[in-house]
Amino acid sequence: MNKKMDFSIPSLGVAKISSPIIMSSTQNDGQADYVDDSDHILYGIDTDIDKDGHPVPRHEETVELAGPRSKIYFNPAHVHAAIATCGGICPGLNNVIRAVVRCFWYRYGVRRISGIRFGYQGLLENSPWPLMPLDPDVVDDIQEKGGTILGSARGGGKQVEEIVDSLERLNINILVTVGGDGTLRGAWEIYEEVKKRGLKISIIGIPKTIDNDLSFIQSSFGVDTAVQMAVPVVRSAHVEAKNSVHGIGLVKVMGRESGFIAAQTALAQSDVNFCLIPENPFDLDGPNGLLEHLRRRVLDRGHAVILVSEGAGQDLVPETGEKDASGNVKYHDIGVFLKEKIIEYFKKEGIETNVKYIDPSYIIRSASADSYDSIYCARLGAHAVHAAMAGKTQALIGLLHNRFIHLPISLAVSSRNHVDLEGSLWRDVLENTRQPLSMKNFNFD
Amino acid sequence: MNKKMDFSIPSLGVAKISSPIIMSSTQNDGQADYVDDSDHILYGIDTDIDKDGHPVPRHEETVELAGPRSKIYFNPAHVHAAIATCGGICPGLNNVIRAVVRCFWYRYGVRRISGIRFGYQGLLENSPWPLMPLDPDVVDDIQEKGGTILGSARGGGKQVEEIVDSLERLNINILVTVGGDGTLRGAWEIYEEVKKRGLKISIIGIPKTIDNDLSFIQSSFGVDTAVQMAVPVVRSAHVEAKNSVHGIGLVKVMGRESGFIAAQTALAQSDVNFCLIPENPFDLDGPNGLLEHLRRRVLDRGHAVILVSEGAGQDLVPETGEKDASGNVKYHDIGVFLKEKIIEYFKKEGIETNVKYIDPSYIIRSASADSYDSIYCARLGAHAVHAAMAGKTQALIGLLHNRFIHLPISLAVSSRNHVDLEGSLWRDVLENTRQPLSMKNFNFD
Amino acid sequence: MNKKMDFSIPSLGVAKISSPIIMSSTQNDGQADYVDDSDHILYGIDTDIDKDGHPVPRHEETVELAGPRSKIYFNPAHVHAAIATCGGICPGLNNVIRAVVRCFWYRYGVRRISGIRFGYQGLLENSPWPLMPLDPDVVDDIQEKGGTILGSARGGGKQVEEIVDSLERLNINILVTVGGDGTLRGAWEIYEEVKKRGLKISIIGIPKTIDNDLSFIQSSFGVDTAVQMAVPVVRSAHVEAKNSVHGIGLVKVMGRESGFIAAQTALAQSDVNFCLIPENPFDLDGPNGLLEHLRRRVLDRGHAVILVSEGAGQDLVPETGEKDASGNVKYHDIGVFLKEKIIEYFKKEGIETNVKYIDPSYIIRSASADSYDSIYCARLGAHAVHAAMAGKTQALIGLLHNRFIHLPISLAVSSRNHVDLEGSLWRDVLENTRQPLSMKNFNFD
Amino acid sequence: MNKKMDFSIPSLGVAKISSPIIMSSTQNDGQADYVDDSDHILYGIDTDIDKDGHPVPRHEETVELAGPRSKIYFNPAHVHAAIATCGGICPGLNNVIRAVVRCFWYRYGVRRISGIRFGYQGLLENSPWPLMPLDPDVVDDIQEKGGTILGSARGGGKQVEEIVDSLERLNINILVTVGGDGTLRGAWEIYEEVKKRGLKISIIGIPKTIDNDLSFIQSSFGVDTAVQMAVPVVRSAHVEAKNSVHGIGLVKVMGRESGFIAAQTALAQSDVNFCLIPENPFDLDGPNGLLEHLRRRVLDRGHAVILVSEGAGQDLVPETGEKDASGNVKYHDIGVFLKEKIIEYFKKEGIETNVKYIDPSYIIRSASADSYDSIYCARLGAHAVHAAMAGKTQALIGLLHNRFIHLPISLAVSSRNHVDLEGSLWRDVLENTRQPLSMKNFNFD
Repeated sequence: MNKKMDFSIPSLGVAKISSPIIMSSTQNDGQADYVDDSDHILYGIDTDIDKDGHPVPRHEETVELAGPRSKIYFNPAHVHAAIATCGGICPGLNNVIRAVVRCFWYRYGVRRISGIRFGYQGLLENSPWPLMPLDPDVVDDIQEKGGTILGSARGGGKQVEEIVDSLERLNINILVTVGGDGTLRGAWEIYEEVKKRGLKISIIGIPKTIDNDLSFIQSSFGVDTAVQMAVPVVRSAHVEAKNSVHGIGLVKVMGRESGFIAAQTALAQSDVNFCLIPENPFDLDGPNGLLEHLRRRVLDRGHAVILVSEGAGQDLVPETGEKDASGNVKYHDIGVFLKEKIIEYFKKEGIETNVKYIDPSYIIRSASADSYDSIYCARLGAHAVHAAMAGKTQALIGLLHNRFIHLPISLAVSSRNHVDLEGSLWRDVLENTRQPLSMKNFNFD
Repeated sequence: MNKKMDFSIPSLGVAKISSPIIMSSTQNDGQADYVDDSDHILYGIDTDIDKDGHPVPRHEETVELAGPRSKIYFNPAHVHAAIATCGGICPGLNNVIRAVVRCFWYRYGVRRISGIRFGYQGLLENSPWPLMPLDPDVVDDIQEKGGTILGSARGGGKQVEEIVDSLERLNINILVTVGGDGTLRGAWEIYEEVKKRGLKISIIGIPKTIDNDLSFIQSSFGVDTAVQMAVPVVRSAHVEAKNSVHGIGLVKVMGRESGFIAAQTALAQSDVNFCLIPENPFDLDGPNGLLEHLRRRVLDRGHAVILVSEGAGQDLVPETGEKDASGNVKYHDIGVFLKEKIIEYFKKEGIETNVKYIDPSYIIRSASADSYDSIYCARLGAHAVHAAMAGKTQALIGLLHNRFIHLPISLAVSSRNHVDLEGSLWRDVLENTRQPLSMKNFNFD
Repeated sequence: MNKKMDFSIPSLGVAKISSPIIMSSTQNDGQADYVDDSDHILYGIDTDIDKDGHPVPRHEETVELAGPRSKIYFNPAHVHAAIATCGGICPGLNNVIRAVVRCFWYRYGVRRISGIRFGYQGLLENSPWPLMPLDPDVVDDIQEKGGTILGSARGGGKQVEEIVDSLERLNINILVTVGGDGTLRGAWEIYEEVKKRGLKISIIGIPKTIDNDLSFIQSSFGVDTAVQMAVPVVRSAHVEAKNSVHGIGLVKVMGRESGFIAAQTALAQSDVNFCLIPENPFDLDGPNGLLEHLRRRVLDRGHAVILVSEGAGQDLVPETGEKDASGNVKYHDIGVFLKEKIIEYFKKEGIETNVKYIDPSYIIRSASADSYDSIYCARLGAHAVHAAMAGKTQALIGLLHNRFIHLPISLAVSSRNHVDLEGSLWRDVLENTRQPLSMKNFNFD
Repeated sequence: MNKKMDFSIPSLGVAKISSPIIMSSTQNDGQADYVDDSDHILYGIDTDIDKDGHPVPRHEETVELAGPRSKIYFNPAHVHAAIATCGGICPGLNNVIRAVVRCFWYRYGVRRISGIRFGYQGLLENSPWPLMPLDPDVVDDIQEKGGTILGSARGGGKQVEEIVDSLERLNINILVTVGGDGTLRGAWEIYEEVKKRGLKISIIGIPKTIDNDLSFIQSSFGVDTAVQMAVPVVRSAHVEAKNSVHGIGLVKVMGRESGFIAAQTALAQSDVNFCLIPENPFDLDGPNGLLEHLRRRVLDRGHAVILVSEGAGQDLVPETGEKDASGNVKYHDIGVFLKEKIIEYFKKEGIETNVKYIDPSYIIRSASADSYDSIYCARLGAHAVHAAMAGKTQALIGLLHNRFIHLPISLAVSSRNHVDLEGSLWRDVLENTRQPLSMKNFNFD
C-alpha cells in the first residue's frame, strides 16, 4: 500500500449542461449543495505526529466525492441508460435497481431506461431475452422482494466485443453494472473496449459482494442483511446442539475468501464457540487441532456450536479444480466435510454425539434488504446516476469513512478485502467466542 | 372405523379429595365450572337424516372431556410428578413443560416436580443425568427458546422394566410424557407394566408430532409454527428460482408418513407449483411423470418451485433398511435424490437449468412456538395435570372439535393420521398449486 | 339456544349445469369428491347418554357442508361476479379477494369479476369509483400486503335500494361481501330486496370480525394474526414496565364486545398480570377493585402489565352517545381512561410510578395474514365461490368443528359470540395471569 | 469548528502493570496487536489540495484510538467496577452491560462488578436498591431482551457530591455510565468532583442516544434497530391510508432535536410522502404550507403518509414550559397536534378524510438490538473496559470513521449532532419522498 495509488476518475468529456436538479452552490444557506469535482476526502486516516505536534498522515491519496454536479455531460433527452445485475443474488439488488431508475427518471428526466436480463447474458448476440423497459411504475415496491427483477447470472464477461457491439446497436450510452470482482473486471474490459472504439459510453459500477471482499469499500450492501439472517440460524443450531446428547451445531455461511459474515455473526450473538474463517487456517487433528478442542468443549459443556465460512479450511479438503461461470474457484463444501470428519472422530473416540449441519446460504442471499441495506442501496443507486450523468466512467461507487466516493474500477479490483487478524474486529470475535487464538499445531524442531 | 371404538379412560381409583382449585359446580352463575366425568362430546359429527328429519349420527362413540375435576385422586402433598420430552424437538416443548410445572405448582400446590433428561434415558439405570428439579422460577421464560430444557432423545422405550424400576425407586407417582407415536407406545407399555405391578402411578401422554400424524388429534402442537417457518423458506426458493435461467427451487419439509406441513405450506402462499406428499405417489419419468410436467412448466414460465415432504416418493428411492433409535424407518433423502434426478434429466434434455435445494428442517423444528402453538401448549399442559391429579391414567390429552379431551393412549397409537386425498384440504391445495391431480402414468392394456 | 334453529340455505333455483370442476362422486377411489347438499354435520356436539349407553345429543340441528357441487346453477359464461370488503381492515382481506378471483377464474372459467371500491360505497349512485376489473394477474401477490386492494369503508348499508339498483344496472349476478355484523345485516337486507324484486342474484357472505364476535363461526380470520401481532407489543410493555421504578405497562387491543384477542394474547405469553375484557366487569376502586390489586402487585413485584380490550369497563367511562358509520356505538378510549385513573391513584397514594400506554390497533389490523389466516382465507374464498356457483344465496361461509359450512346470514347475525366466563379458555387465562377471579366489590347487606 | 478542539484524554496515572491480555506488539505477525496511546486518526477527512498536488486537510485535530493497552493502570484484583444505565431505554443496553461484564471478567480477571439500579438513583443516599452483583452467569442471554436489567431512570445527576460519596463508600474505582447528553454532563461533573477530591476513580462514558444527537459519534447504538422497527410501522400507516377514502397515515418517531430516525426511515422504504424533522421548520398554513401540499397529494393520489420527529414543528405548538427529570424540555405532542390540525383543515375544506395516527415509540425503544447494534454494543462495551483498565478517565467511547476512539466527555457534550440540510443524507431523503424542498411561506415585501 505504500506506493501511491491513482484514484483519478476518467471522464467522457467536459460537462457543460446545467443539471436539471436545483441545488445551491453556496454553503450555509440551508439548502442542499452540489458536489464539486474538487471535493475530496483523505483516503487514509491513520496518522503520525511530527515534532511540532502536527499530524502527518501516513497516506497522501485523496478520493473524489460522489454526488450531483452542477454541470452534467449527457443531455437527458439523449440518454439511453441500461442496468445489469450479475453474479449470485444478494439482498438489496432490487433496491439498487429501483434507486437507479427513480433517480434517472425523476431527477434527470431520462425516459429511456432498460434492464438487461440475466447479467451480461441479455447483451449477447443470441440472447433470447429482450431488454426490459424500466420506469418508476415497474420498479414500484420491487424492493420488498429479494433477488433482482432482472435475473442474474455469472459469466458472460468474456464476450467483451459482443457486448460492446450490443451497446452500440442499442444506442446505450450509460451502463450501470452491479456485481462483484468478476463482474467488475468485465466492466473494466468493456470500458477499455469502449475507449478503444472511441465511444461515449459511461461505464459505472456498483459493488456487490455479500462476502464483503472488495477493497476500498468499507462494507458491501447485503452484508448487514446477511448477518441479520444468519443470527437466528446460529440460534437454531444452538438449540439443536443443546437439546441432544453431546450435540454439535454446525452452520456454514457465505465467505469464499473473506470471513466477514462469519465474524460479524459470531459477534452479533453469543452462541458460537468456534468461528472458522478463510483468513485463519486451522488444523483438524493434533493436540491444538479443532477436533481436540471440540472434544474438550463437548465433554465439558455438553454441546458446541461451530460457524464456518464456506472458504475456510480449503487446505484441508481435496481440490476439485473446477471454476464456476464467473471464474471463481469451486471449493469443496467445507460444511459437509467438517460434519463427516467430526462424526468419524467422535465415533473413533467412542463418544456419543449428534451433529446437526445447517446450510442457510440460499435463505440468506434471497432475503429482501433490511433497513440498513435499503438505505445504503437507495443511496448507492442515486450516486451511480449522478456519476454517469456527469460523464464519469470506469467509476465504482464506494463508501469510505461513511462518505460516498468515486473509485476507479481498475483500482477496486486490484486487491481483496480480508478480515485483519491483527485488527479490532477479529480481536472482539475472539473475546466473544473465547476460542483459541490459533488452532494450528506448531512444529518446533 | 365402523366397529365401535373404546374411548374409556382407566382410573387409578376413586377420586375422593376435594380439589384445591376453587370453581363452581353450577352452570350460568358466571363462574368457571368443574368438568365432570360424564361430560362427553360426540366423536363423529357426520350425520344422516332419518325419515322424520332427525339426524342419525354415523358414529355412536363419545369422548370424555378434559378439565379440572371437583374431586382429585392424589393428595398434592404426596405427589412426585415427573415430565419427559422424547423424540425429535418440536416448537412448543418448553411451553408444555412450563404449563405442566405451573399448573402442578400454583393450582394444586404440588412441590415435587422433576424433569427427566433426554427422553426416557434419564430413567435408565446407568443414566449419567440426575432428575432436574422444576419449579416456576426454573421454567420462567423458557418458552421464549426453542427446544426443550430437558433435552430430548429417541429410543429408550424398550427398557420398560428398567424405567418402571426407576419410577418406583424415585417415588414418582405421576409421569407426564410428551412424544410421538414411538414414545406413546412406550408410555402404553409402561402403563401395562405399572398395572401388572399394581402400582398407583398415573401415566399421562401429551401428543407431539410435527408431522401431525397422530389419529384422533385434530392438529398437533408445533405444526402451526412449522408452517409459519416454512413459508418464508419457500419464498426464498421462489426468489432463487426466478432469479436464474430456468431456475428450480426445491424445498424439503418434515413429514415422514403424512404430508400436512407440505400441504398447509402450499396453501399458505402462492409460490409452490408441485407439492409432493407421502399420501400421493408420483412417477418421475413418463408422459405424466414429475419431470415432464416440470420441463413444461420451466420452459413455459421460466422457473418452478417444488415442495416435498421427506416421506414422499419413497417407492422411488433405493431402500436403506435402517431404522432410527425410535424404530422409525430411515428414509433416503428424497430432496437430494430429486435434485440429482432433475439435474440429470435437464442435462439429458439439453436444457440449461439451475436447481437450488433448501432443507430447512433444523431451522423449523428448533423455532420457539408462535402464539397459536403457545396457547395450545399452555392448555395441553394444564389439562394433562388436571387428568393426572384426578387419577386418570393411560390418558392422552387430545383436541377434538376444538375441545380438550381424554383419549386412551392405546387407541391413539392404533392408527395414523393422513392427508385425505378426497378431502377438502388436498382439494384446496390442488386449486392453489394448479398441479396435476395425479402424476402417475396409467397402464391401460 | 334450546328452541330449534333453522340452518336451511335458500337457493336461486335448481342447479342443472354440470360443474366444470372434474371430481369424483364415489368415495374411496383416491380422488377428491364433490360435496352433496345432503352432506351435513351436527351443529352441537355436547351429548347426554341414555339408559342403554347411547349418546343423546343435546342439539338436533344439522348444518350443510360447503364445497364444490357436481351441478351448478350459473352458466360461467353468464356470470358477472362482484366482491366488496366492508368495515375496518383486518389481516387476510387480500387473501380472500385473491382466492375468490382465482376460484372463479381458474376453476369455473368466469371472466367477469369486479371489485367494488370502499365497501358498499362503490355501488352508490354517485360513487366516484368505477368497478375494478379483477383477474389472476391483478390479484397476484396482493396477499403479501395488509389491507384490501379494494379499500374498505363502514356504512353504506342503509341505501339498500340504491345498491340493488346498481347490481341490476351492472348485471351483477353474484355478490360476495366480506364484512362483520353491520355489513352482514346489510347483505341480508340486500338479499331481501333482491328476493322482493324476483332477481336471480346470489348474495354470499364471508364473515370478517377481528373481534371474533360472530356466533356460529368457531374463529374469524385475522384473529390469529392479531394475536401474533399483539404478543410482541405486550412484551414491549413488559420491558418498559420492568425498566422503570414501579413501571406499569398498559396495552389496549381490539375487542368491542368480545375479549377474544385479549384473552388469547394473555394466554400466548406470560407477561400479562391483568387481562380486562368486556365480558368480565370490574371495579376501579374499593378493596377488590383493579387499582388496589394493581397497587399490591406493583409494590410487591416492582412492575405490572395490564392488557385491556377496547370494550372492557364501558360502565366506568362516561358515555359519548355517538355511533360510527356502521352503527357501532362509539366507546370512550378505555386505555386513555385507565392510564389517567392509574396515574391519579398512585399520585394520591404517594407512590412513584411510570405508566406506559401502547395502542397498537392500527399496526395489528393492517398486518398481512400469517400462515394460519392465509390458509383459512384461501379456503373461505374458494368455498364462497362454490356456494355462489351452486346457486346458494343468503349464505355465510363458516367454520364449525373445523369443517366449512353454509350458514344463513340472518341466523349468523342474530346473536353475538362472547368469551364464556365459565368455559375453558377463560379458565386457562386466569391460571396464566393469576389475576383475581373477579375484581368487583360485593355488597353483602 | 475552526478553532482547534482539544481531544486529549486525562489519565489517572502511569499505567505500569502488564495487561493479562496476551497480544502482540509487533505488526504483521498475524496476531492481534495492542493499541498504543500514540495511535491516532485524523478527526477531519475533508481536504484541500496544495499547489504541489498534496492534500491539506482542513482539520488538524487527531483522535486517540481505543483498544487494549499493553500496560494497564489498575490491578484487576483491586478493581471494583460499577455500571449504570441512565435516561430512556434504548435497544442495546443489555448488550452493553453484558459486554462490559464479560470483558472485565474474562479478559482482565476482575471479580467485583456491580450494577447500579435505575440510573444514578441507586447511588443516592436513601436509595432502596442495593448494588446488583454482576458476573457472566447473570448477564448470560440478557441481550435477547430489550431494556436494561439494571432499570433506568432520568435525573439524579444533580446530586454529584452524594454520588461521589457513594462511590467512595462502596470502594468503586471504575464507573461506566451509559447515557445521553444529560447523563454525560452528570458524568463530567462526577469526574470533576472526583478530581477535586483527588480520588483515583475512572469515569468512562458510553454514549446512548436513540436520537443520534451526540456530536463526534458517527452513529449511536440503538438507532439502527429503531429504524428497523419504524419501517414496518410506516408500512402499516401506508396500508391504513390506502385502504380508506382520502386516508392519511401519520407516524411519530423519536427525535427531539435531531431527525435522524425519521430521515433514515424515510429513506429505508418508499411510503413516506412528507418527512418532518426538527432541523427543517415548516408552516402549516399558506400556499406553501404542509396542509396545502397535503391536500393536493390526497386529492391527486387518494392517500398520504407523514412521518414526523417528535421535535419537529415545535414553533407551531403552544409551549408547556415543563422539563423532564433529566432536564430535557418537554414538548407538546406534535403527532396529536398535527392530527387535530389536519382533521380540522379537511373538515373546513369539505373534503372527506380518514387520519390514522400511530405512535410506536415504546415499541421501538423497548426492542432488543438487531445484529448491527448487537455487534456495535459488544464492541463499545469491550472498549470501555480497555479504557478504564488503562487508567483513562473522562473518556467517552466513540466511533469515528468506523474506528473506536476516546473522546473527552466534556467535548462530546459541547455540541449537538443534527441532520445537515445541505448534506447528502437529507438530499437523498428529499429524492425519495419527493416532498418540497421547503414548506415555509416566504415573505417578499
